[in-house]
Amino acid sequence: MKKFFHVSDIGDLDAALREAAWVKADPFHWKSLGTDKTAIFIFFNSSLRTRLSSQKAAMNLGMNAIVLNVGADSWKLETQMGVIMDGDKPEHLREAIPVIGSYCDLIGVRSFARFEDRDFDYQETILNQFVEYSGKPVISLESATVHPCQAFADLITIDQYKTKPRPKVVLTWAPHPNPLPQAVPNSFAEWMNAADVDFVITHPEGYELDPQFVGNARVEYDQMKAFEGADFIYAKSWASYREYGKVLSRDRAWTVSARQMAVTDNAYFMHCLPVRRNMIVSDEVIDSPRSLVIPEAANRVVSAQVVMKRMLEAMQ
Amino acid sequence: MKKFFHVSDIGDLDAALREAAWVKADPFHWKSLGTDKTAIFIFFNSSLRTRLSSQKAAMNLGMNAIVLNVGADSWKLETQMGVIMDGDKPEHLREAIPVIGSYCDLIGVRSFARFEDRDFDYQETILNQFVEYSGKPVISLESATVHPCQAFADLITIDQYKTKPRPKVVLTWAPHPNPLPQAVPNSFAEWMNAADVDFVITHPEGYELDPQFVGNARVEYDQMKAFEGADFIYAKSWASYREYGKVLSRDRAWTVSARQMAVTDNAYFMHCLPVRRNMIVSDEVIDSPRSLVIPEAANRVVSAQVVMKRMLEAMQ
Amino acid sequence: MKKFFHVSDIGDLDAALREAAWVKADPFHWKSLGTDKTAIFIFFNSSLRTRLSSQKAAMNLGMNAIVLNVGADSWKLETQMGVIMDGDKPEHLREAIPVIGSYCDLIGVRSFARFEDRDFDYQETILNQFVEYSGKPVISLESATVHPCQAFADLITIDQYKTKPRPKVVLTWAPHPNPLPQAVPNSFAEWMNAADVDFVITHPEGYELDPQFVGNARVEYDQMKAFEGADFIYAKSWASYREYGKVLSRDRAWTVSARQMAVTDNAYFMHCLPVRRNMIVSDEVIDSPRSLVIPEAANRVVSAQVVMKRMLEAMQ
Repeated sequence: MKKFFHVSDIGDLDAALREAAWVKADPFHWKSLGTDKTAIFIFFNSSLRTRLSSQKAAMNLGMNAIVLNVGADSWKLETQMGVIMDGDKPEHLREAIPVIGSYCDLIGVRSFARFEDRDFDYQETILNQFVEYSGKPVISLESATVHPCQAFADLITIDQYKTKPRPKVVLTWAPHPNPLPQAVPNSFAEWMNAADVDFVITHPEGYELDPQFVGNARVEYDQMKAFEGADFIYAKSWASYREYGKVLSRDRAWTVSARQMAVTDNAYFMHCLPVRRNMIVSDEVIDSPRSLVIPEAANRVVSAQVVMKRMLEAMQ
Repeated sequence: MKKFFHVSDIGDLDAALREAAWVKADPFHWKSLGTDKTAIFIFFNSSLRTRLSSQKAAMNLGMNAIVLNVGADSWKLETQMGVIMDGDKPEHLREAIPVIGSYCDLIGVRSFARFEDRDFDYQETILNQFVEYSGKPVISLESATVHPCQAFADLITIDQYKTKPRPKVVLTWAPHPNPLPQAVPNSFAEWMNAADVDFVITHPEGYELDPQFVGNARVEYDQMKAFEGADFIYAKSWASYREYGKVLSRDRAWTVSARQMAVTDNAYFMHCLPVRRNMIVSDEVIDSPRSLVIPEAANRVVSAQVVMKRMLEAMQ
Repeated sequence: MKKFFHVSDIGDLDAALREAAWVKADPFHWKSLGTDKTAIFIFFNSSLRTRLSSQKAAMNLGMNAIVLNVGADSWKLETQMGVIMDGDKPEHLREAIPVIGSYCDLIGVRSFARFEDRDFDYQETILNQFVEYSGKPVISLESATVHPCQAFADLITIDQYKTKPRPKVVLTWAPHPNPLPQAVPNSFAEWMNAADVDFVITHPEGYELDPQFVGNARVEYDQMKAFEGADFIYAKSWASYREYGKVLSRDRAWTVSARQMAVTDNAYFMHCLPVRRNMIVSDEVIDSPRSLVIPEAANRVVSAQVVMKRMLEAMQ
């Protein structure tokens, strides 16, 4: 396992879910795997859950964990090739990446979509440079187009709470004051398409995700219809892919509230967090006993630990 | 021990001081207590001593320590309930706290008084949310109204240096360019009232502390009179409690200098640091052999370690 | 070994290089040396390599490593004695240093030249206060005038790649948009003068380094002539020492490119990084197989580990 970007990187999902259950039951069982191994987690953007859960997962495995905040601890990094570097970026990724690689055994990188150039973002330009130049396994801690540690944790959570062999899972767009990346819905769609669930995506017109992530999912523009009989509601805001990076709607009718939850099959509510209360979801829904946002976040340690465990095992 | 806010949380002070002496003499004796345990220290405000001494104390106990700077590493957190979150705060404490709690075994929180609303501050709104929602033991690393790790370290220091069974201890206000929280004088007063010392508080009119912290302490408005025969002088600036958050005086006559120290019984000088030289205290006093500011800061590791040790023992 | 500032602090260079080779071959061999020992690394300025390699080296030795960013994690620190502290700096180094010293066993400090006062910088005012007041061994992680961990790593790299008993090593100035400190060229010159190499410094007029660092090195103002027959080219920009802190030239003819490399004896290219591509060095030179910038950076762990290992051994 040289990288963790896509659902295909984890292989058989049933095996991955069984492994997640073991890790959850006995998190310190593999502590010797990480002896004398160091993980470096690099943040080009802010983070709470990912920052903490990645460190915790690494420590559970007996690794040393080092965190680097680019732009705060360190300086800005140039990402374009062939430029005369006379501006505000004193170092090029082309040097920074192999240097970081030489100081550790495993790298996690958070680098959000910039919304300046869809091709630059969707080619995962930054993350692929890490894969190419670091010489070490690379984990996306939310990059321009994917957030696989989140989607894996989401799947673990659904697997844990489902009461039907093939639950209905609905990914719904929700309003937000700012344009947000598509990494979370992309990965969630990718993982749900690979899992044994009945998967539906709902959003206003214009919010269609990149077809490579939508795959065979059903897309339903009527939110209420999409929610009918659902077992899991997964809410998330994202900016338009078509009109790249634009906010096309702030329609609060899409805010997930008791009105929509009423037509589900007593569905659980999920969100990756951070969540804007009363924009994405009403207080009553997120504070209800059917809200899974906290156990879902807790599973971030489990998903990260399974991924790092496999990377460490491959180094043996 | 589910929280450490007040002197009452530590129980019998003699027992606590004996335990502090053991910890100081053999800091690594309890390293196995912290195996596979993680402390998360959350800073809403800057810190030097607290940041370093908390990490050191956790490491002495064999724990993993993770530091999170809210607003730098992570984003701003909403603290009010029921709001529509369409502003600059992308996450609510109501989610952030249980998530953090799920990643660790013990939480330390620094969150200063905001001076916007005395009730909000004096109800310890932020810290109490951590207690209520985290499910983990919570240590105040200076919150709106208390700084118990500091006060415990101060008591350890006084106990270590006292040459009389019941020394006279004077808490004196001192001038400062900015309005400072009352957490340090509140906790110092609370701990001194509980300890076996002769305790006097001196400050200009208008700087009276909250009566719940003043307790039975003698209040003396004449600084020189208060200092007479004192064994320990504890200087600190704070803003008014009555005219909440206001600076009522910058009178440099209150700056602790040789003039005032001359009427003491060759008193030791104490301050929690950071200290404004020649505002709070003159160079000659803080640089004298009777200044305890460095051993006092060193005892911050001891007080933090005793508290975390007890919390870990309660988890056994 | 109470401090690591100058080449003289490391003693016999052959012994140091042999030790570096052992450390590189078996980095975890001395893990018990650091048991219950803590290193604090203090950054007054940004850092990538130094930050990561220092933590890695400390962890390789079994130490706990704590990082403190002054001005971000903590507040600004006053450095002048005798002032009334009524400005924006709430704490004096005179307190902060012994407090930090009381929390750890070993201190690393990054504190760049300020270019306000050459005497203040060249007296290493900040670092010397750490030596005087901390009571602990102090490592310069690039201070006002020296960067010894870098120079030691450079020597290790040259030793590793040299194919002649006494290679020709050229330190060349190169253009940069901003005035940069002299710490790197100072230390490189100091270490090369002490090593068994044929050492030449080349730069435009006005860029002469402090004579105490130039020592017996040959200074050649004609860059092409300096490069003739060279085995190692070490590029670096720095601001003028004479007209202290001034940029006297941005002449891109000094940018190291294939033109200059052609007259060398197929020299290796070195730079401490971060490097401005196409200002300091052309893409073709830094991307060529003769570029050592990555192995040179990787050796930063080795040099730091040798230094800390010796400091820990002295504590036994």
